[in-house]
Amino acid sequence: MRLRNVKNKEEILNNSKYFIDNPYEYKGKWQSFFKNDKPIYIEIGMGKGKFIIENALKYKDINFIGIEKYDSVIARCLPKIPEGLDNLVIVRLDALNIDKVFLKEIDRIYLNFSDPWPKVRHSMRRLTSKVFLEKYEGVFKKKKEIIMRTDNRDLYIFSLLSFSEYGYILKEISFDLHKDKDDLITTEYEDKFTKLGMPIYYVVVQLDS
Amino acid sequence: MRLRNVKNKEEILNNSKYFIDNPYEYKGKWQSFFKNDKPIYIEIGMGKGKFIIENALKYKDINFIGIEKYDSVIARCLPKIPEGLDNLVIVRLDALNIDKVFLKEIDRIYLNFSDPWPKVRHSMRRLTSKVFLEKYEGVFKKKKEIIMRTDNRDLYIFSLLSFSEYGYILKEISFDLHKDKDDLITTEYEDKFTKLGMPIYYVVVQLDS
Repeated sequence: MRLRNVKNKEEILNNSKYFIDNPYEYKGKWQSFFKNDKPIYIEIGMGKGKFIIENALKYKDINFIGIEKYDSVIARCLPKIPEGLDNLVIVRLDALNIDKVFLKEIDRIYLNFSDPWPKVRHSMRRLTSKVFLEKYEGVFKKKKEIIMRTDNRDLYIFSLLSFSEYGYILKEISFDLHKDKDDLITTEYEDKFTKLGMPIYYVVVQLDS
Repeated sequence: MRLRNVKNKEEILNNSKYFIDNPYEYKGKWQSFFKNDKPIYIEIGMGKGKFIIENALKYKDINFIGIEKYDSVIARCLPKIPEGLDNLVIVRLDALNIDKVFLKEIDRIYLNFSDPWPKVRHSMRRLTSKVFLEKYEGVFKKKKEIIMRTDNRDLYIFSLLSFSEYGYILKEISFDLHKDKDDLITTEYEDKFTKLGMPIYYVVVQLDS
């Protein structure tokens, strides 16, 4: 995503009740943070937040945590969150540190249009590489479930192989998600992309513990 | 494939030294049939035989067995086999009986452009369904390896899910085989198809015993 600086980003972050400045202090305590026992789904790289906000509005029985690295991006998401949503928070976090913020408490990870890192020498930076699958291992509560969407065929194929090699079972596949499913909640990027008629690749993988 | 009757098919079959009329008697004895300890690769549904004949010509260190259900199809393949090939035989066999003909002696299975059986109620007839994966289980010597090509997206996706569910690991994937690889040995059907610019789906899966 294009990074556009937001001038008053610190003010926006500091004044939002949906933003968690120091998520590290909640490691292993997210369930009590939400004050309920509903499942917790996270989206790594939530961008401007359309996908996770709409999910939080639609699925009140799930707690959602949006993860994003850049303040500027978070500052563009926060104003869009409607008042009164109590099943959504946004944390600033580099995915490399995800295992320092969550411990055996996550039920599902969403990876939407992650950076493909096309160069082979950068392949371990892809969010579906072994490096990250190992980090995710400890954040899941019990059954591990990852749901991925991408428009990038190379990242998709890399991910199918990487998931399989790690032991994940492929549960659902689509090579053209918007043709195969209705009533999808989408990301901003996805909307632009599908308007051009381009297919979205999709996979659901699970690993029993 | 279109089935065209061949009038003198019985004569062709009976007079060919490459045709095995009763493969059941070699169950568990194929290695001694070939009188060597080279790996044995089989192609289930070899059709007119281009793929397996060219493989046998190119890879002398492998024993190849072509499997085909219909006499008419076998009769069109046999005359194409060049004299002096000692690493190829053709057997008439319904894939449903594959476990009655091979026992712990096969190193690789090729599935090329298998019947997609598009109706859901016929899904167990697909050569990558659980029914067949269970039959293949006992034919493999040690490491199980299946290499599949298809032009049918639905069969391909079904197969990826079926392989994964069964425990196979995806080792190699291409959504456009002829773009990704050079010097391929192809089937007759494949040649027609790729000339039209259509992509071939490809996957290599393995299961350690």
